[in-house]
Amino acid sequence: MTQTLEPTTVPSEVPTDSATGGWDDPTAPPVGPQPTPRDRMDAWLSGFEAALAARDPRRAASHFATQSFWRDLVAFTWNLKTVEGPAGVSDLLTAVLDDVDPSGFAVTEEPTEGVEVIEAWIEFETSVGRGKGHLRLMTEDGEDKAWTLLTTLRELKEHEENLGERRPQGVEHTLTKGRASWKERREIEQRSLGYDEQPYAVIIGGGQGGIALGARLRQLGVPALVIDSHDRPGDQWRKRYKSLCLHDPVWYDHLPYLPFPRSWPVFAPKDKIGDWLEMYTTVMEVPYWSRSTVRSASYDETTKTWSVTVDSDGESVELRPTHLVFATGMSGKPNVPTLPGQDVFRGEQQHSSQHPGPEAYAGKKVVVIGSNNSAFDICGALWEHDADVTMVQRSSTHIVKSASLMDIGLGDLYSERAVANGVTTDKADMIFASLPYRIMHEFQIPLYQQMAERDADFYARMERAGFELDWGADGSGLFMKYLRRGSGYYIDVGAAELVADGQVKLAHGQVSRLTEDAVVLADGTELPADLVVYATGYGSMNGWIADIVDVETADKVGKCWGLGSDTPKDPGPWEGEQRNMWKPTQQENLWMHGGNLHQSRHYSLYLALQLKARYEGIPTPVYGLQQVHHTR
Amino acid sequence: MTQTLEPTTVPSEVPTDSATGGWDDPTAPPVGPQPTPRDRMDAWLSGFEAALAARDPRRAASHFATQSFWRDLVAFTWNLKTVEGPAGVSDLLTAVLDDVDPSGFAVTEEPTEGVEVIEAWIEFETSVGRGKGHLRLMTEDGEDKAWTLLTTLRELKEHEENLGERRPQGVEHTLTKGRASWKERREIEQRSLGYDEQPYAVIIGGGQGGIALGARLRQLGVPALVIDSHDRPGDQWRKRYKSLCLHDPVWYDHLPYLPFPRSWPVFAPKDKIGDWLEMYTTVMEVPYWSRSTVRSASYDETTKTWSVTVDSDGESVELRPTHLVFATGMSGKPNVPTLPGQDVFRGEQQHSSQHPGPEAYAGKKVVVIGSNNSAFDICGALWEHDADVTMVQRSSTHIVKSASLMDIGLGDLYSERAVANGVTTDKADMIFASLPYRIMHEFQIPLYQQMAERDADFYARMERAGFELDWGADGSGLFMKYLRRGSGYYIDVGAAELVADGQVKLAHGQVSRLTEDAVVLADGTELPADLVVYATGYGSMNGWIADIVDVETADKVGKCWGLGSDTPKDPGPWEGEQRNMWKPTQQENLWMHGGNLHQSRHYSLYLALQLKARYEGIPTPVYGLQQVHHTR
Repeated sequence: MTQTLEPTTVPSEVPTDSATGGWDDPTAPPVGPQPTPRDRMDAWLSGFEAALAARDPRRAASHFATQSFWRDLVAFTWNLKTVEGPAGVSDLLTAVLDDVDPSGFAVTEEPTEGVEVIEAWIEFETSVGRGKGHLRLMTEDGEDKAWTLLTTLRELKEHEENLGERRPQGVEHTLTKGRASWKERREIEQRSLGYDEQPYAVIIGGGQGGIALGARLRQLGVPALVIDSHDRPGDQWRKRYKSLCLHDPVWYDHLPYLPFPRSWPVFAPKDKIGDWLEMYTTVMEVPYWSRSTVRSASYDETTKTWSVTVDSDGESVELRPTHLVFATGMSGKPNVPTLPGQDVFRGEQQHSSQHPGPEAYAGKKVVVIGSNNSAFDICGALWEHDADVTMVQRSSTHIVKSASLMDIGLGDLYSERAVANGVTTDKADMIFASLPYRIMHEFQIPLYQQMAERDADFYARMERAGFELDWGADGSGLFMKYLRRGSGYYIDVGAAELVADGQVKLAHGQVSRLTEDAVVLADGTELPADLVVYATGYGSMNGWIADIVDVETADKVGKCWGLGSDTPKDPGPWEGEQRNMWKPTQQENLWMHGGNLHQSRHYSLYLALQLKARYEGIPTPVYGLQQVHHTR
Repeated sequence: MTQTLEPTTVPSEVPTDSATGGWDDPTAPPVGPQPTPRDRMDAWLSGFEAALAARDPRRAASHFATQSFWRDLVAFTWNLKTVEGPAGVSDLLTAVLDDVDPSGFAVTEEPTEGVEVIEAWIEFETSVGRGKGHLRLMTEDGEDKAWTLLTTLRELKEHEENLGERRPQGVEHTLTKGRASWKERREIEQRSLGYDEQPYAVIIGGGQGGIALGARLRQLGVPALVIDSHDRPGDQWRKRYKSLCLHDPVWYDHLPYLPFPRSWPVFAPKDKIGDWLEMYTTVMEVPYWSRSTVRSASYDETTKTWSVTVDSDGESVELRPTHLVFATGMSGKPNVPTLPGQDVFRGEQQHSSQHPGPEAYAGKKVVVIGSNNSAFDICGALWEHDADVTMVQRSSTHIVKSASLMDIGLGDLYSERAVANGVTTDKADMIFASLPYRIMHEFQIPLYQQMAERDADFYARMERAGFELDWGADGSGLFMKYLRRGSGYYIDVGAAELVADGQVKLAHGQVSRLTEDAVVLADGTELPADLVVYATGYGSMNGWIADIVDVETADKVGKCWGLGSDTPKDPGPWEGEQRNMWKPTQQENLWMHGGNLHQSRHYSLYLALQLKARYEGIPTPVYGLQQVHHTR
């Protein structure tokens, strides 16, 4: 359900006044013929590879700049991991080099040259797989050094996906008596999975995350089962309020294998994306149990398997998977505040996630507590249906206009313009993944400054209406808020204007209590209400673990999402990657999957490869398993 | 349901011993710097365009070789039309030049050079649209002349499809009271189309042809309605015998807008393609009435509209479209022979199209009359289910092994290899469309000679088993048979081996009569039978017109399909294009659409543009309307 956006400015300049440090400019004029970017890349790669082959971590690390970042997605670390500077590189390589045995580093297309950086797409191999990556070189002390390196595992040798040249035949060209048809084989499989045959992985939650992961595991031949409580795939979207459209644009939202057609709307209406998810589940043959709810799960340390109790359309089924994946939504469980008077209030109260849509509330007084995405969406729809709506703003909110965000924030990577420039979805995902979280805010700040200028009139009107705005703790805007806390913003698709011109009323402050027919704020303001909507956000995903497994396991896994940026709702220390997402956790064989459609698409690849490797018995020594600093 | 394959060898050599004539070789050594293929193409195009601008058909025609072919798909002629030689070109241009006002001819990528031919992708404009094309130049009397020119209309100006940059927003960023959601608008549309709002076109038949055309018209904003008798889209495939898989490979089968994923099997099982068609209909929002049958239709010459009576799930509905499209299958109505004794035979008799599958016939004696695709498929499935099967061969059959056909016949255009070489589906379709029907057999003959060599053992075994083989009237093989008569072949996916080794028994000759329990052949052979399957083919598509409109209209439209090649079942005179398919017929506002998935994809574009132009009131003067030489 989550929707958010990403930074897309591709740095060709190293931020020179960066908190992460500067370096000497190579000011001496070059002598003789200049090496081409290709020459420089080739030289760096062969030097790096020679050091790796010599099993010399220090020499390999000397190829990195003082301030540099190596982000590895599963290829070297069986983890999602960013290490920093030569010391970080050396530590990583010391731990993994013998196992990984990397080789075959090469550029895959002509490198490009920016102001201070040259960059290239690369490929490489490990002992067990093939990888792709992205490399940016800068000059330090007259030498080419890596500034950013991204390495990603793309496939396991001898376990490649059956795509393109490897796609199945679909038919056998020798007739044999008693052979089963595709349909019969599908029916047999559907009957036996979960009964006669145990899934290797159970995925709890069949929204975009569970479906994308299910599709990848299907392609990889890993028996997996997606469990979802709704009647049909896609109902996760269909059941929401009727005016909802995706806030993220189509180029950002493609699922693996089967991109949307060129006729697909920029912002898909909820029922249309629901239909797509349903058809995708069928066409990609994702094993999927609808009307099924996981009641409980427990892990047996001896057998290394889970016992999962499922209510499957009224029948209790016991599953015994090796792995358990929570794809229950990165938003986690709803936060509903406890307030005096909730028991005496005579009207309706509901969390935003339970809001059935505006139809029943024409002419009613509605108080929406909160001022982020859900609050605005719900206020807007209620206003459209002639409710009398008041929004209660408890703290400042970051707002950007959808069109500005698309254009300035996203356009270089995910847009028709990007497509025309040859930026495929995979390339866009990889470019984005190549930007280190540690310095990402520095690239974001100027983008949001542009948006502030472009929409200055709008922001002035919002302020005149008394709305409290912010741009994130360091001015880095929406996407950093998304990565750090997953909340605190609204992508304006129209409802902000209703607040600006007073059609949706605005109140401020904490809620102190409810009376029989009103919400009372800290300053004593009384807001008469027939309905109170708590658009008060969500807890950490590990709340689902507490519910389904137990509190101990939830605490052992710890807080999910966030970077440890030491900004509101994202306490430090610095984590380097998003907490617990798509990577090994402190609980063996338990995984967290989630996020927007982009993340469901891209990170499902790495999670699927981690599961596939374990399924095939390939050793997966994890480098740098995440430590837990916060339990929720 | 139709499945067949296409010629794909891209000629870089003009066939010098061709029946269509030879020419002088440019043997004089070149003097000075050679013009590049690009120079030569540019020079030809600017010379041609200058002659067009000067409204000088003779001068424009002088740019064509003595033996040359201009195939136009709708751009110049509002027809599918091939003209031959300078005289043909001159005639065409004299008729259309003022209306079409062509301009802007330019190559769109670097031309390529073959042995005697250079070729290029081109673009151009007309007064109302934008076109793409393909041009092959050869040297005649020392000058570059067009050998083949393909021109195709791709879009109408100011009526471009809403794709890519023009895709819909999906959401309005201004909230307004009472706005309908996407789902509500879809529901309103579904309720009103055919009742409060009349479709501009009614498409009879909702297989791949009707669905592809429906999707294109939807994208073009032409109100159209697909009428189909089955319960669900895709049932056209699902309801066939269980072992059926497509005989055409995935690369050949993509539908418009939404290609199959890279995981799709080479030969899709029937239920899988059924699921795809169903999901495609939903996702592309094709207006589609299931469980609906067109009972009758009549044309009102005064109002220029059709009255169409539909049994829609038990309710009789009267539709008043302007256009009526028959997408009822290019195979036409089943041919069932009339034989003495059919009334006394005690077993079952069924046309191949009615065959329910083999399950009920284990241990039964089955006589299958016919020896083409359907006969082999049915015999094979019956054998797999332990029936005692005899095939009656009445005339020779052309057989090619599927793997050889894929590799030799199709691989250059439709294969993973082609994809890797940058041959997109659209390019493959255009290259194929650029090969003139008149000389196509000349390029086909050597391919089938290769197949005969490669599978010589197999053919020897078939002959030893007494099977009568042929390679088409002129040795040009399967695809020419498909284009000429749509029958007379089997793409071997395994069942031929059963005949070769006698597991399916073979008998020969015409059937003279049936007894109570046997089929009697002309030579007196009696074949005991519990079931007789008439795999005896299909009539011309205009048989559907006779049923639904009347015999007079069917005769007025005439025979459908075929080229007028003067080979068996395809009487002359030469037509130049396939009879009545995807182009104006002698019956105003009546159209025929059909063919395999490739044709449903590619030719639906031109039919959709013809309908769109009429819908928008754009003049569509037809050049060279087809004459009718045969009524069936």
